[in-house]
Amino acid sequence: ANPISFIAGPCQLEGRDHALMMAEKVAEAMAPTGSKFIFKSSYDKANRSSIGSSRGIGMDEGLKILQEVRETFGCPVITDVHETTHCPGVAEVVDIIQIPAFLCRQTDLLLAAGNTGKPLNVKKGQFLAPWEMGNVAEKIKTTGNDQVMLCERGTSFGYNTLVNDFRGLPTMAETGCPVIFDATHSVQQPGGRGNSSGGERKFVETVARAAVAVGVAGLFIETHEDPDNAPCDGPNMIPVDQLARLIGQLVELDQLTKAHRA
Amino acid sequence: ANPISFIAGPCQLEGRDHALMMAEKVAEAMAPTGSKFIFKSSYDKANRSSIGSSRGIGMDEGLKILQEVRETFGCPVITDVHETTHCPGVAEVVDIIQIPAFLCRQTDLLLAAGNTGKPLNVKKGQFLAPWEMGNVAEKIKTTGNDQVMLCERGTSFGYNTLVNDFRGLPTMAETGCPVIFDATHSVQQPGGRGNSSGGERKFVETVARAAVAVGVAGLFIETHEDPDNAPCDGPNMIPVDQLARLIGQLVELDQLTKAHRA
Amino acid sequence: ANPISFIAGPCQLEGRDHALMMAEKVAEAMAPTGSKFIFKSSYDKANRSSIGSSRGIGMDEGLKILQEVRETFGCPVITDVHETTHCPGVAEVVDIIQIPAFLCRQTDLLLAAGNTGKPLNVKKGQFLAPWEMGNVAEKIKTTGNDQVMLCERGTSFGYNTLVNDFRGLPTMAETGCPVIFDATHSVQQPGGRGNSSGGERKFVETVARAAVAVGVAGLFIETHEDPDNAPCDGPNMIPVDQLARLIGQLVELDQLTKAHRA
Amino acid sequence: ANPISFIAGPCQLEGRDHALMMAEKVAEAMAPTGSKFIFKSSYDKANRSSIGSSRGIGMDEGLKILQEVRETFGCPVITDVHETTHCPGVAEVVDIIQIPAFLCRQTDLLLAAGNTGKPLNVKKGQFLAPWEMGNVAEKIKTTGNDQVMLCERGTSFGYNTLVNDFRGLPTMAETGCPVIFDATHSVQQPGGRGNSSGGERKFVETVARAAVAVGVAGLFIETHEDPDNAPCDGPNMIPVDQLARLIGQLVELDQLTKAHRA
Repeated sequence: ANPISFIAGPCQLEGRDHALMMAEKVAEAMAPTGSKFIFKSSYDKANRSSIGSSRGIGMDEGLKILQEVRETFGCPVITDVHETTHCPGVAEVVDIIQIPAFLCRQTDLLLAAGNTGKPLNVKKGQFLAPWEMGNVAEKIKTTGNDQVMLCERGTSFGYNTLVNDFRGLPTMAETGCPVIFDATHSVQQPGGRGNSSGGERKFVETVARAAVAVGVAGLFIETHEDPDNAPCDGPNMIPVDQLARLIGQLVELDQLTKAHRA
Repeated sequence: ANPISFIAGPCQLEGRDHALMMAEKVAEAMAPTGSKFIFKSSYDKANRSSIGSSRGIGMDEGLKILQEVRETFGCPVITDVHETTHCPGVAEVVDIIQIPAFLCRQTDLLLAAGNTGKPLNVKKGQFLAPWEMGNVAEKIKTTGNDQVMLCERGTSFGYNTLVNDFRGLPTMAETGCPVIFDATHSVQQPGGRGNSSGGERKFVETVARAAVAVGVAGLFIETHEDPDNAPCDGPNMIPVDQLARLIGQLVELDQLTKAHRA
Repeated sequence: ANPISFIAGPCQLEGRDHALMMAEKVAEAMAPTGSKFIFKSSYDKANRSSIGSSRGIGMDEGLKILQEVRETFGCPVITDVHETTHCPGVAEVVDIIQIPAFLCRQTDLLLAAGNTGKPLNVKKGQFLAPWEMGNVAEKIKTTGNDQVMLCERGTSFGYNTLVNDFRGLPTMAETGCPVIFDATHSVQQPGGRGNSSGGERKFVETVARAAVAVGVAGLFIETHEDPDNAPCDGPNMIPVDQLARLIGQLVELDQLTKAHRA
Repeated sequence: ANPISFIAGPCQLEGRDHALMMAEKVAEAMAPTGSKFIFKSSYDKANRSSIGSSRGIGMDEGLKILQEVRETFGCPVITDVHETTHCPGVAEVVDIIQIPAFLCRQTDLLLAAGNTGKPLNVKKGQFLAPWEMGNVAEKIKTTGNDQVMLCERGTSFGYNTLVNDFRGLPTMAETGCPVIFDATHSVQQPGGRGNSSGGERKFVETVARAAVAVGVAGLFIETHEDPDNAPCDGPNMIPVDQLARLIGQLVELDQLTKAHRA
């Protein structure tokens, strides 16, 4: 199996300078292990808890920034789409298209994204069992695109709480698709702050370690230079200055796990 | 409080003749109690479990049929939308626009539907707590449209299972929005049949009675002349020839409940 | 079907005078409808959240008080047991023995209670599916005692929260056992206050109405003259001065439900 | 932190020869890593799903066998208690007393076990949040016994299913108690076979790896030479001939984890 790769970046694009600064810091955190990373950031938060929350800078400006990050750092970039009509434009810039968890059953969006020919990272809906993601992958593969990654980001567990069922990782891997683990949204507390989601950043390391020891192709992790003042997902993003240490440990864990599996 | 009204019809539009036949049967089932009903059917099943499932007859033909049902039986009609771009066209025909549960947090869809000025019936996501629906209603109300109904259709409970938390009905009613109870999707077993959802039709009466005794503005109930051979949601729809008896009992329960509340 | 009967009383025996006072108030609340009731109170709270919580007055004194309530008001009495060795002594006084939810799988306790020949009310464990209660009833019936009632009091739903699945009522009724609904523990928030359980008294009426409209043999409801200062389960008990109104409405609902079922 | 130790053995004592044979095989599996292990087996299955299931050989014979295992292999032994009256007798033989999950809130049992002065391993109830186990430990510590281990074995997740929330491991560790992870009961499907519990043995390695990578003091794992024909918990026990390989990998993972934590 390949060494673990990372999807990392700030939840939301906050501007050109911020994105470039964050990409640089992420690149620095990857340097000691030489890990591959894909820069992730969103141009539109289309399903915020409440109307008062920040939506983002929009598709045109967002894609321009992602393009510049890509060229500057030579790293692939990923972003999420919410409308079928956005897929072709997004595909011109990004290396991977992400399908949000709430939308993972929307056939038209899956097909539009699949039709771009780009690899897709599909988040498992909080309302789906891991074994239901095989049908999701099949929908996409009818477009002739079989570059599908499946991503665990937690399952509904009572109200305002998610739980990761780690049995879901090998279950999703049985589809043949690479499995990604989203370590920061997994510790989200959806709607937990009334008008926005809470989160428990202190558990990111816990769930990330568990996932890597079970075995994954990649880890998704949102990070920020000042999470407590980030416009989105602050309570669960980790400070970027803690990223290098975490990556270092996860890479060691991954090596041991893949040696065991070999 | 007004007497309970009903949203009823076959899950999916199967053709003009079928829709007219079903609308007639639903109208007959309502006649003994003189209950108001809104005819419901979908022109597109946009989030089926698997790609092999029937999608439906499409928007143009579907709206034509709904228009004819509306004129023939003098009843309001409701259908669900999945794309922002569909909202204006749908609004030209239907009396109420429905937002599917998976999409209840998609801000653009809520705003596009709200902007039509039509009343909306928003299903609570299986991944949301009842108290999170206040934020959903608020999103819509920023369009100036405050005709928002909130609809309970079950909450994720482990895998492939939903549960109704009836405390959610008064909780959602605190928003001031009328609350609808979806008695047939509530007994769905999402993904429970591998490539499609299962369901437990035998419990429709149970959950419908519970909801009406707690107090609701309306009841949503899908029905079919031959559910076991329906293209969609067969396991949870009730046979239309059992509808009149159920409606009769629910209306009596509703009268008693609203007398208690008066 | 027989009219609904009620199991009612304060969670915990607080002394002779308190029990007699409460029994009188409960009897008064039943008088307008002429409903049968069984007086419930516990002599020992053997599984409190924390060691600092009040345990109760003990078996000897408790049984004496229950005996006096029984003689004074001519009502049957019920209490719960936690040890096999208590069953014979308790059976000398009470009319029904209750098995707590946490203990509903303890074979020795079920057999010891069954061997007394007294009717049993077994609460469904928060960790059990409704259909697992058939095995529980079967264990008891091997003693030759087939007077078994099964009682719904909520199922674990995430952390610190219970949910009632009303489909469980007909499911448990398929065993042939009378089904009781516990309206006050169902709205408990287990461990929700750190060192003790919280609760949402405001939803007692909601869940009680739902249960009665679905159809039950009896309703369990804990009540107190001053719940906020009760030694146990205060957040979910209802004030006894609200009991008569609630009973009146539930009896009307029950009559309608049983007419529908006849 | 100390190297991980193991609690291992067959679910149920099946006789002297079987226990000695199993203890020898467990000892052999530990030899390559030199890991400490505590032999676990039960003399009484007091809460089986149904009355037809095997209960076990009883306390007197069971303790005699455990005593012989202890002397023959020089390993500590652990067994579970279900009655307060059993605690003193059990404490004369075993090194650690285990409190079953269903009984983890029974104050009298906790105190009786605590009063023996023996270390206790308390399983977290399937109905409890991890943070509620602090109160459980506190109950025991009032006896002056502070040798309390807390053990994760899954939390109720819908019906007939458990899920491990790995955030619960550091949460329980905040009490200062060593945390044990039960890898075989965690994959149980309670009541999943109608009259008995099912299980998914294939996920034992998955959840064990996750737990060890998060960090635990010990791992609990039930094993049998022929699980499919074992009298109890067959679907989730692992074949003893696979134990050495699993232990070997877990010890390597544990070393890496504890190096990261140091």
